[in-house]
Amino acid sequence: MADTARTGTAAFNGLPAHVWPRNASRGDDGVVSIAGVKLTDVAERFGTPVMVVDEDDFRSRCRDMAAAFGGPERVHYASKAFLTRTVARWVDEEGLSLDVASLNELRIALMADFPAERITAHGNNKDDEFLRACVVEGVGHVVLDSDQELERLEIIAGEEGRTQRVMVRVKPGIEAHTHEFIATSHEDQKFGFSLASGSAYRAAEAAVKAEHLDLVGLHCHVGSQVFDARGFTAAADRVLELYSRIHDELGVVLPELDLGGGYGIAYTEDEEPLDVDAVARELLAAVARIAEELGIDAPTVLVEPGRAIAGPGTVTVYEVGTVKDVTVAEGVTRRYLSVDGGMSDNIRPALYGSLYDARLVSRMAEGRPTATRIVGSHCESGDILIRDADYPDDIRRGDLVALAATGAYAYAMASRYNAFSRPAVVSVRDGVVTPMMRRETIRDFLALEG
Amino acid sequence: MADTARTGTAAFNGLPAHVWPRNASRGDDGVVSIAGVKLTDVAERFGTPVMVVDEDDFRSRCRDMAAAFGGPERVHYASKAFLTRTVARWVDEEGLSLDVASLNELRIALMADFPAERITAHGNNKDDEFLRACVVEGVGHVVLDSDQELERLEIIAGEEGRTQRVMVRVKPGIEAHTHEFIATSHEDQKFGFSLASGSAYRAAEAAVKAEHLDLVGLHCHVGSQVFDARGFTAAADRVLELYSRIHDELGVVLPELDLGGGYGIAYTEDEEPLDVDAVARELLAAVARIAEELGIDAPTVLVEPGRAIAGPGTVTVYEVGTVKDVTVAEGVTRRYLSVDGGMSDNIRPALYGSLYDARLVSRMAEGRPTATRIVGSHCESGDILIRDADYPDDIRRGDLVALAATGAYAYAMASRYNAFSRPAVVSVRDGVVTPMMRRETIRDFLALEG
Repeated sequence: MADTARTGTAAFNGLPAHVWPRNASRGDDGVVSIAGVKLTDVAERFGTPVMVVDEDDFRSRCRDMAAAFGGPERVHYASKAFLTRTVARWVDEEGLSLDVASLNELRIALMADFPAERITAHGNNKDDEFLRACVVEGVGHVVLDSDQELERLEIIAGEEGRTQRVMVRVKPGIEAHTHEFIATSHEDQKFGFSLASGSAYRAAEAAVKAEHLDLVGLHCHVGSQVFDARGFTAAADRVLELYSRIHDELGVVLPELDLGGGYGIAYTEDEEPLDVDAVARELLAAVARIAEELGIDAPTVLVEPGRAIAGPGTVTVYEVGTVKDVTVAEGVTRRYLSVDGGMSDNIRPALYGSLYDARLVSRMAEGRPTATRIVGSHCESGDILIRDADYPDDIRRGDLVALAATGAYAYAMASRYNAFSRPAVVSVRDGVVTPMMRRETIRDFLALEG
Repeated sequence: MADTARTGTAAFNGLPAHVWPRNASRGDDGVVSIAGVKLTDVAERFGTPVMVVDEDDFRSRCRDMAAAFGGPERVHYASKAFLTRTVARWVDEEGLSLDVASLNELRIALMADFPAERITAHGNNKDDEFLRACVVEGVGHVVLDSDQELERLEIIAGEEGRTQRVMVRVKPGIEAHTHEFIATSHEDQKFGFSLASGSAYRAAEAAVKAEHLDLVGLHCHVGSQVFDARGFTAAADRVLELYSRIHDELGVVLPELDLGGGYGIAYTEDEEPLDVDAVARELLAAVARIAEELGIDAPTVLVEPGRAIAGPGTVTVYEVGTVKDVTVAEGVTRRYLSVDGGMSDNIRPALYGSLYDARLVSRMAEGRPTATRIVGSHCESGDILIRDADYPDDIRRGDLVALAATGAYAYAMASRYNAFSRPAVVSVRDGVVTPMMRRETIRDFLALEG
């Protein structure tokens, strides 16, 4: 038992490389650094909670994706995962393209001088203002999601005297989840045109015939947190049949195929991230093979990872407050560690039941593993960040703990519940820390109330 | 079939009084007004989505609660449901007390000149800054949630030369859900001291003995969206036994008993809200009876409704955009109505599976009922506001629809997902509309990035 305990504590002092930022390491003093910057120093300077982004991790994942898929412009970073002007600049400097799904995301990108021609606009409910901004700014692709949108965009492009490049979003009837995929489902959703019903073909035909639209490809998305290529290749198989039909019946060769995002990352030590190189090889080979079988030119494959680029390189650092041992059954206790954030800065555990990897980052842990729950400071019982884990029992008030892989969908979905301030976000690189988003203050709240 | 369809559409043009704001009505022109203000006018002036608060509804529920529980100061409005300075002023003017669960909630209340002595401070993880602010500002009650907090507050109150009135939060082992309650559970949570283990008694004893703390009562909370008195009376039964023990062993008479919140409201036509008068009568009678049986003075009962005051009087108005019919099975279609908000302004359907009542508010509906889903504009399939309903099939682009009973936990938990702007909030009263919170703009985003 003692040996197991020591093993558990020693393991807890590790930082699983497939979950933590690429430049994370624990020093001899027990303090975790990212890119040479001690998290204790970041916490002291910026307060807690604070999100720390490993810039080189983010950029290196951009490059890995670009290398795997044959060119950076083929990889579209999905803004919804995490977007600031700084992030848009990084994406631009790495040569990637950018997905936006709202007028505000587009504006932020343009304010960061992101080239409009490398931007793709998504959304099930783009209003005229958003569509017109896309046309006027010269956005590279608008992904059409309904007949009404197609008609309105044709009118707007005509009014502006432009031709807008478009794709048509297709529901391939494939739903991919982690290591499985379902080949007959997912029609019942708001996005896209159905392949099965023929509406996808009719939309493509309408786009081809529209005077001010230039159809360059089809788009599909099979799911989130996908870990192998099968769902993507199954979708490509179905969608490429439509390329063939469009070629045969409309005489149009579509040069691009957007297979969306959903590349899984490891949130916990037990998980393995999707192998980008292997999936890319398999996917590109499958598209080439299917196209050849169909007798059509293989389109250029575009992909849209957001989480897989932004997720793994960021950690959220909290300070531990209340430590409470709760008797949950006869002779069974659970330790509750309260931290100074919670569901306001990371809604994913409450919203999706998401798991995370947490570590003590301000020193080496020495205690014996004990059943522990990490909870936030919100006035809600469901405000739980880590539901069930064994952590050393010496973690105490004032310690810093960090959750890894919080770069996607945490800050992006942050709220002000209980009037909490959104945390500060900093980036680190080569031993230097750079503020990215300052912590909100009470003034930011009050500014909205005249 | 045609008759059923007509009945369905006629019913859809109604506004169930137990779900909609008290001053909501549909005019002969089909437009819904609240307190004499047309929602079409609000939408035109403030844009959509926009939240419209019926001020008299809010105030009247404050008064109903005050009357039911024997005095406004006994009713503590829970800030977490929805707090602005205006709301704090309304609560103050109605004479209610106020619960805060963070330093920022306390600051907002104080900036609205809410009297500190009518404020109660909650939270499982109050830091020293929050505790000190409570002491210095003269907050009426601090609800103690852990031994460590008790010790720190004693020190801080001593340092400041004050005596702080406190309550001890107790886990009564009762969990109430809607129409049921469970009498042996809910120990496994972050809040409070266990009655069963004796830690609640020990905390009360420590508070009694602390030089700078004045223990005035115990606090418990049994659940959310509770619809009858049984869970509350069962909790009172257990907690009052501790009052008796404290009286007998410590010689202290605790003058107050806080039974928390959780008063259920009707989100849909099928639901009936908790009957506040009946529950109050039953609860107060039970407390008097139990106290008499125990031979102790009956403490004054305090309650903490948030949702039941703020929830029912507010609606969220959206504009309909994309309308799409999706074939979900052979011969079965579902209509998707996209609106210009979604999970950013109301996370509750995604987070809790919450149901809402939606109506067409810009005109009378005339079509035939059809299976419909209302979805938001976010780049996420799960962005669904109303999962499954039958709405008339003539709802189209440009129509305004509103969801009722969005006053609690919608704006309070709003995010900027997809860089959406938090909606404008306005109050209406006697035909006059008053801006409360302006819509966020892109400048508010950019202000955080230096």
